[in-house]
Amino acid sequence: MEILIKDCCVVPMTGRGEGDGWFRGCVGISGNRIAMAQPGTECAGEFLASHPGARVIDGRGKVLMPGLINAHCHAPMTLMRGYADDIPLMRWLNDYIWPFEARLDRSDVELGARLGIAEMLLGGVTTFVDMYWYEASVARAVADTGIRAVVCPSFVDGNFARFEEDVRELSGWLRDCGRLTMMVAPHAPYSCSKEHLLRGGEIAREHGCGINIHIAETTDEQTEIERRTGVSPVRYIDGLGLIDGRTLAVHGVWLSDDDIEILRRRGATVVHNPQSNMKISSGAAPVAKLLERGVNVALGTDGPCSNNDLDMWEEMRSAAFLQKLSCGNPCVLPAFEVLRMATVNGARAIGLGDRLGRIEEGMLADVLLVDMRKPHLSPCNDVIANLVYCAKSSDVDCVVVDGRIVVENGRLCGTDVAALCEAVARRTGEIKARCADR
Amino acid sequence: MEILIKDCCVVPMTGRGEGDGWFRGCVGISGNRIAMAQPGTECAGEFLASHPGARVIDGRGKVLMPGLINAHCHAPMTLMRGYADDIPLMRWLNDYIWPFEARLDRSDVELGARLGIAEMLLGGVTTFVDMYWYEASVARAVADTGIRAVVCPSFVDGNFARFEEDVRELSGWLRDCGRLTMMVAPHAPYSCSKEHLLRGGEIAREHGCGINIHIAETTDEQTEIERRTGVSPVRYIDGLGLIDGRTLAVHGVWLSDDDIEILRRRGATVVHNPQSNMKISSGAAPVAKLLERGVNVALGTDGPCSNNDLDMWEEMRSAAFLQKLSCGNPCVLPAFEVLRMATVNGARAIGLGDRLGRIEEGMLADVLLVDMRKPHLSPCNDVIANLVYCAKSSDVDCVVVDGRIVVENGRLCGTDVAALCEAVARRTGEIKARCADR
Repeated sequence: MEILIKDCCVVPMTGRGEGDGWFRGCVGISGNRIAMAQPGTECAGEFLASHPGARVIDGRGKVLMPGLINAHCHAPMTLMRGYADDIPLMRWLNDYIWPFEARLDRSDVELGARLGIAEMLLGGVTTFVDMYWYEASVARAVADTGIRAVVCPSFVDGNFARFEEDVRELSGWLRDCGRLTMMVAPHAPYSCSKEHLLRGGEIAREHGCGINIHIAETTDEQTEIERRTGVSPVRYIDGLGLIDGRTLAVHGVWLSDDDIEILRRRGATVVHNPQSNMKISSGAAPVAKLLERGVNVALGTDGPCSNNDLDMWEEMRSAAFLQKLSCGNPCVLPAFEVLRMATVNGARAIGLGDRLGRIEEGMLADVLLVDMRKPHLSPCNDVIANLVYCAKSSDVDCVVVDGRIVVENGRLCGTDVAALCEAVARRTGEIKARCADR
Repeated sequence: MEILIKDCCVVPMTGRGEGDGWFRGCVGISGNRIAMAQPGTECAGEFLASHPGARVIDGRGKVLMPGLINAHCHAPMTLMRGYADDIPLMRWLNDYIWPFEARLDRSDVELGARLGIAEMLLGGVTTFVDMYWYEASVARAVADTGIRAVVCPSFVDGNFARFEEDVRELSGWLRDCGRLTMMVAPHAPYSCSKEHLLRGGEIAREHGCGINIHIAETTDEQTEIERRTGVSPVRYIDGLGLIDGRTLAVHGVWLSDDDIEILRRRGATVVHNPQSNMKISSGAAPVAKLLERGVNVALGTDGPCSNNDLDMWEEMRSAAFLQKLSCGNPCVLPAFEVLRMATVNGARAIGLGDRLGRIEEGMLADVLLVDMRKPHLSPCNDVIANLVYCAKSSDVDCVVVDGRIVVENGRLCGTDVAALCEAVARRTGEIKARCADR
């Protein structure tokens, strides 16, 4: 398939500075790659001459930018959206989340993933990193819907056998779908034994993939791991050989300078989830300091039980606001840096930094169009500020993943959203009824 | 005009507890009042029998709730949206905001207000409290567009004469438009002399209206006022007789226990603007403590220079998230309490607590419908949690103010939004060009 997007404002995310050299121009897509991205209007005619069958999209009044990369979520947990809010952690887990999760089967996980993917695609997320179990069911939803994903089978001590089965089940999907890759996801330093962590590391190495782990999320975790091991969670996990250039250290709220130095030296990525960290009152991650020290920081939504959505626009805003507040400095984490976290840094986090996250010839064609002709996006004094501080997922007009149009005119292609929402409502009701029966 | 909204989920905001006794039912509007709000379906037929000409709206899949009350903003500053972000305060003011504002005339203020009102109505805001100058121009926009507002002519020491003229100009609008009331707005304790503050208080008393003032926003303000007066900003302003049951104490980030006791005793309202407080790194207001002590707390967006939008849904989420973070407790400021801040508490703040902010027979008909049939609002495990933690201004489907439909199917009635945005873009460009010429 070939696509030409004409007369749009292109935010390529190729620069590092303010404004990023956005330009008015055209972008051509051929196969699953960006074939042309140039200022002006002449390039449109040239592209059409060499690609006469290309589908033409009018980009007037719209911004074209790289697809957003949600570097941490648990998409199937959409089923539990709003199920238990504003209550203490242990009551939340014991009375709500764990009983509900105990009743989920493979088809539920797939249904929740489909709902999460629908929400993400409509909001301009073209890649997500998912951590859950039955990840083969998530992979099926990814393959079907056209989104790109890193599926990360997860384990705690009690379910390592299921994790190993999940890894086996994924192999076919990874072979057959070019939009899928895998990481190994130990849940957290405190919920996995040293033996299981080491075995997880071996499995990751066998499959040539990285580690995705919740780490340094709460002060309770810091205290517990220091009590058990005498060192911080990051130093402990590093000592087990689990931190390298492919590691996603998720949350990283309570990182010490020593931890930051370890992550920097290894080339690991910290995934920041500001809304979840605020809502569960975990704290404010030292994002500005991490970036200043040269650590890659990507952005994630976390699961819909702790946020309660999969909206990267809100996450961008919250990242900027929270960092300005926690640093006591309105200048830190400016809009452009946040946009880099959600695109360029996310691509680097998942090992696709050379192929994804920017609008450039030869890059994978994961792009979105934002319709800027709205009161809340007017006037456009600064396109980057308007994107980061004002745009909403509902402003996303068109989304292309891997060269294929998956959202058009703000509507999901090939999915009956109403039927999906009804199926989710029905199934969620059944699961809750069974929770009440126990 | 008579309106019947059938088969909707009504969130009346009449209770105080979790869930608020929402019900499936119908709401009838006659003139500018809610004439009927009842569970079930039979009431629809009865209403139509007694109001045969009523316009019928299908509420299936939608939530009907009170219109949102934005208790603090500077709507005309929409013109400066994204004009200057992420830079130090004094550079922000000296190089950007003040030169731009110096070039605004009455028609610019009206244009900015019209843009802000368009954004607010589309996002379900039915009442806003505006603090700026040339408020008669804001009043004109309010009268035309159908929104409800409290217009608050503002002063600092340098422009008291203009403030007095603004008050005079407003009298006709206040007489002619039932949706308009006025408050007197000294900018802040540090930017107004004691004499002007006292005179402002006299003018407020002459007009039987309250005081709307930025207070306890930053540590710099606390230090400066304590240095000048020996007491806190709240105690200082209270000593001048400016705090009573009609006072809006805006921001209140740095309130001491003593300040809180003064505000409680006087029956004043604190207006919380969480996104602005975070973005400018002012701090986190003690909202949970204020509510616990019995102080009324309403919610505002602040101006689009420091936020950068007029979106109360985002403000509700941020209020909950910020309070959970700053208190280190995920249970504080639960969803329902936040929704009260944006409706019931807002109505009380502006002296309309007996007429506005709830869905009940006899109340003013300021209501909105939220379309819940979206992936990011599915499933609906908890309607209040979904509204506060997941809904967006773009989910607002229909808005009624004072009995009149002003937004329908997510579109503004009677305003050419595209033409408005174009006019704003053109005029903003002219003003910036003149700023560059100076």
